[in-house]
Amino acid sequence: MLSKSQISFIKSLQQKKFRKEHNLFIVEGLKSITEFLASKYQVQTIYCLSKDIPNLPKLSQKQKVFEITEQELTKISSLQNPQEALALIEIPQLDVNVLEIEKEINLVLDGVQDPGNLGTIIRTADWFGFSNIICSKNTVDVYNPKVVQATMGSLARVNVSYVDLPAYLIAQQLPKFGTLLDGKNIYHQDWPEAGFLILGSEGNGISDEIISLLDGSVTIPKLGQTESLNVGIAAAICCSEIKRKSLK
Amino acid sequence: MLSKSQISFIKSLQQKKFRKEHNLFIVEGLKSITEFLASKYQVQTIYCLSKDIPNLPKLSQKQKVFEITEQELTKISSLQNPQEALALIEIPQLDVNVLEIEKEINLVLDGVQDPGNLGTIIRTADWFGFSNIICSKNTVDVYNPKVVQATMGSLARVNVSYVDLPAYLIAQQLPKFGTLLDGKNIYHQDWPEAGFLILGSEGNGISDEIISLLDGSVTIPKLGQTESLNVGIAAAICCSEIKRKSLK
Repeated sequence: MLSKSQISFIKSLQQKKFRKEHNLFIVEGLKSITEFLASKYQVQTIYCLSKDIPNLPKLSQKQKVFEITEQELTKISSLQNPQEALALIEIPQLDVNVLEIEKEINLVLDGVQDPGNLGTIIRTADWFGFSNIICSKNTVDVYNPKVVQATMGSLARVNVSYVDLPAYLIAQQLPKFGTLLDGKNIYHQDWPEAGFLILGSEGNGISDEIISLLDGSVTIPKLGQTESLNVGIAAAICCSEIKRKSLK
Repeated sequence: MLSKSQISFIKSLQQKKFRKEHNLFIVEGLKSITEFLASKYQVQTIYCLSKDIPNLPKLSQKQKVFEITEQELTKISSLQNPQEALALIEIPQLDVNVLEIEKEINLVLDGVQDPGNLGTIIRTADWFGFSNIICSKNTVDVYNPKVVQATMGSLARVNVSYVDLPAYLIAQQLPKFGTLLDGKNIYHQDWPEAGFLILGSEGNGISDEIISLLDGSVTIPKLGQTESLNVGIAAAICCSEIKRKSLK
């Protein structure tokens, strides 16, 4: 049985400051937890409705599994419809300087605010085989439960780092492309083997400071009258275009 | 000042049965309301923080505008951060048989459940100039406030109809394509001038009954390990691929 203090500890991890303090984040759902268990992430604790879990990789002795009731799961879950398990996972210390950025186009997010958008971008990046997403410090926290949930387990496979974006990009030699409203038609773009593709925030797009660092810019041309595309959608069309040749 | 019964009437429109009963739905935000005013939709009532609204098209005498306080707006809004205005708009009686389906590829949704996904698909369809989205009866209601909000005004320009999908498709002569996990590589697909592209639900994809009616199927090839793409993302990549030639 979970104590009141355990419940309030787990729930506190829905907030960034407590995630940072305890270096832990929450993943819900057996499918996602299984993907984190098979990754470089360290799963610390699993709370589940039944300890008799099929297809679960062998756990180490350090990893704790607690059987809890549906009522307890409802208390610790951030979902409207809690799934069968919830895990606490250690936040990895990811050094942006060890990323193999010279092997591919790296996705860069400049101030994306919506958790669902970030989560969807991570899931799409995973689908198209992008390894790295580099975020400005003002991008929504990737360990926010809504982001983690929207990645559907893909966070276990995509490296997401936070950097001082202008300083980081200034130090990089690889070509930098941004998605702007007045860039080159993306369907005409020949992509280099490696570089950066930068997407801006929902409200304001890419910040002026970052625009001044771009080597090129692309636009998804439109036929209709709406002013903008959702950033997750724009990212997906960019991912599809970048990988189109190698997938054809 | 809004009476208690006015407030509860407006809030009741967040539920489908009351929208159906009163034939009204809610649109929030001046930008979206302006787009509906410029469309074929009939805007019935506008509640706003100031009657002195810039750039608002001329209203007819039948259209009522009420100045309300921020507190009142908070009470009637379904948003966490209410915008400056909220409008009640008549639900149009759209006859699916008058859609000009033979002029283009028509998007078809078979059981999409998430309001954000449907809203994003409508916004993306508008961007790429698709006129029609035809939904199965079990697709989420397009006048759900979360759907309307996610369309960012694009609902004013895209026809969204609900039909008995198997019966509707059986009666159509135009070619029918579905997005499946084992279809033809979408980057190899030559699209006809007119037809249907069917996307399935988040959990189950396209239903077996509809699969049996397909003339062809496409797949977005993947390089990574995630099992599926978000349906809004899949729809966007399909839209981009269908229009790619004409936008190049």
